[in-house]
Amino acid sequence: MKVNENYLKLEKNYLFIRIAEKIKEFQAQNPDKKIIRMGIGDVTQPLAPVVVEAMKKAADELAVKETFRGYEDSGAGYDFLRNAVSEYYKSFGADVPASDIRINDGAKSDCGNLVDIFDDSNIILITDPAYPVYVDSNLMNGRKIVYADSNEENGFCAMPSSDGYELDGKKVFPDIIYLCSPNNPTGAVYSKAQLAEWIAYAKAHDAVILFDAAYEAFIKDDNLPRSIYQLEGAKEVAIEMCSLSKTAGFTGVRCGYTVVPSELKTIASDGTEVSLAQLWNRREGSKFNGVSYPVQRAAEAVFTPEGQKQVRESILYYQENARVIAETLTELKIPFTGGINSPYIWFKCPFGLDSWSFFDKMLHEIAVVGTPGAGFGKNGVNWFRLTAFGDKDATREAMQRLKDWVK
Amino acid sequence: MKVNENYLKLEKNYLFIRIAEKIKEFQAQNPDKKIIRMGIGDVTQPLAPVVVEAMKKAADELAVKETFRGYEDSGAGYDFLRNAVSEYYKSFGADVPASDIRINDGAKSDCGNLVDIFDDSNIILITDPAYPVYVDSNLMNGRKIVYADSNEENGFCAMPSSDGYELDGKKVFPDIIYLCSPNNPTGAVYSKAQLAEWIAYAKAHDAVILFDAAYEAFIKDDNLPRSIYQLEGAKEVAIEMCSLSKTAGFTGVRCGYTVVPSELKTIASDGTEVSLAQLWNRREGSKFNGVSYPVQRAAEAVFTPEGQKQVRESILYYQENARVIAETLTELKIPFTGGINSPYIWFKCPFGLDSWSFFDKMLHEIAVVGTPGAGFGKNGVNWFRLTAFGDKDATREAMQRLKDWVK
Repeated sequence: MKVNENYLKLEKNYLFIRIAEKIKEFQAQNPDKKIIRMGIGDVTQPLAPVVVEAMKKAADELAVKETFRGYEDSGAGYDFLRNAVSEYYKSFGADVPASDIRINDGAKSDCGNLVDIFDDSNIILITDPAYPVYVDSNLMNGRKIVYADSNEENGFCAMPSSDGYELDGKKVFPDIIYLCSPNNPTGAVYSKAQLAEWIAYAKAHDAVILFDAAYEAFIKDDNLPRSIYQLEGAKEVAIEMCSLSKTAGFTGVRCGYTVVPSELKTIASDGTEVSLAQLWNRREGSKFNGVSYPVQRAAEAVFTPEGQKQVRESILYYQENARVIAETLTELKIPFTGGINSPYIWFKCPFGLDSWSFFDKMLHEIAVVGTPGAGFGKNGVNWFRLTAFGDKDATREAMQRLKDWVK
Repeated sequence: MKVNENYLKLEKNYLFIRIAEKIKEFQAQNPDKKIIRMGIGDVTQPLAPVVVEAMKKAADELAVKETFRGYEDSGAGYDFLRNAVSEYYKSFGADVPASDIRINDGAKSDCGNLVDIFDDSNIILITDPAYPVYVDSNLMNGRKIVYADSNEENGFCAMPSSDGYELDGKKVFPDIIYLCSPNNPTGAVYSKAQLAEWIAYAKAHDAVILFDAAYEAFIKDDNLPRSIYQLEGAKEVAIEMCSLSKTAGFTGVRCGYTVVPSELKTIASDGTEVSLAQLWNRREGSKFNGVSYPVQRAAEAVFTPEGQKQVRESILYYQENARVIAETLTELKIPFTGGINSPYIWFKCPFGLDSWSFFDKMLHEIAVVGTPGAGFGKNGVNWFRLTAFGDKDATREAMQRLKDWVK
């Protein structure tokens, strides 16, 4: 048999696995050092009590024949959860019907698998820096990628180029556009006007936007969009992916959702109209069997009034961490983005170092771990990502170590 | 953008969604009729008590900061569960190290996604009839499929053809071979000698076997293999997929596992040796974030001595249903396979009908639902699948209705 040789061209290790290995090696050599991890974007606050209760109640239902549930009919998610997500969207002004929503086991799966419904000849646009999954999941199918630079000059908010993008010596326009706002890794957030510009660009070039809204719950400023569907015309051009990982601490529980609006259509080569939602449902119908029932009940509890109140406490906790980090960087006069409407803080590496050298130096000298910007693309080579998802005291201590070291 | 037009060539509806629609329509027209469902292979017995307790305990851990868990480091499954699965394999004589096992959210996902690591030029062999996911997940990538006939003559156990298979007017040998034993839909089980023949064939033609062992727990006969790794040389040619769906009633809880042995290697076009496990880990590292922690704890409980005792009770319950169905068919002199070492019974449609006509007739005349064999391939057009996963009384009643009707 022949393997898919596109895989052989990928970086051998997924970014966070490489970091985990470096930490393991350092800890083995320095067993007494207390490492503070601000690298991987993983939460640390426990699940909300209502969420735990809902999961346990659902587990109990499965213990009794009368209330036992097996396969979901469609695998798209139970109505109780799809309706709850639809209502949640309404709460900040986005009209997303339950029928357009599919429940998944976390945004990463859908983000990786959505590419399956598109032809391999499509040209992909990814803002740089970006979440590595966007790049890898397209390189795995041998697709061509162009990059839109997010950098200090544009406040790490790449905007579309009316001239197109350079690819193999030619100017091209993208077919599939990845956007993430609040951005991972930079923490930058698109304004409504900026998103409107991307939507118009996608329409003009018959492109589809894959919008990653995983960090929407961290937006404090009511003028900033939490969903692309708050913008006029988005349903004709955009798929949105979201997750409970960061909103409700579900990184270990695994639940998210993807919206493929019924309005999103294109024309096949034989001239027939094709619904992207139908293709995606067909893909998932053959390759996915739905999310664990107790997990769906736990997710439902997140969207109850009590659930929203409880998860809000964790978000406030992380936002306070972000504030502390931002304050420290300001004090140290280190340029940064993010940290206000986002759990990520993206700063310029001190000492004029590149990001991997800074990673190693920071790990070895003050035992604090972050994520090298180079792992997210070429515009990150001198930048570094910290997350606000840590423990409050550990975050304060890390910032104290940083101050004593950099000052 | 261009969509993946391979999707437009697929059957519009996944088999079981089509059946669900037919049932819904009939029930709406006949609200008083009590339909007995023996179509979809879904379990009906509740979860084992130890499984429910383990899930609830894990949920409680996530409610407390000190025991909270977020992302799994690798996403391949926690060691506690991978070790438990490895021990389970040992219990019936298969040596599968924990490091070769990846935990997943049910066999369907991996079964569908595994094709990603292979080149689209590979020729696929699927025994016919077969689980539709094998066919669909390859047609989605535009792959060429050849079929090995499972039929009445060979006891529904297709064996390899030393002459190769006809494809576009030429004789070809397959690169990727799907085998399922105990078989879905026929209930037929390969002997060790038969599997050894497939392994030798795969070796001779540099092919890989994707072995679906989802129903292994139903094998009563100790001489029949429950894992392909009970056979000499299997690790160099075979990937095995298994699931807790049928073994432990996890159809709604979602957990399974896939084994890609470290011995399974091939040579890339540049002459370098490639480990399939490494490719698969790379794929999953970018597109999957692991299984819900409480689900993994629930799965771990299945493999404890008490868990095995409790899930065995459900299996015995379903095996008794299978016995009742087989006894009825024998009495009615209807030819069938399965039902002894398998939860499926595959029988020839009475009245000389094709399988969809028989489906409609049986639904309308005695309100019993099964699965038309045509949904699994051309060798199923006159055959029909019943499952033993139903309620004991309902199964007995369905068999009484069948007797009164066919006699």
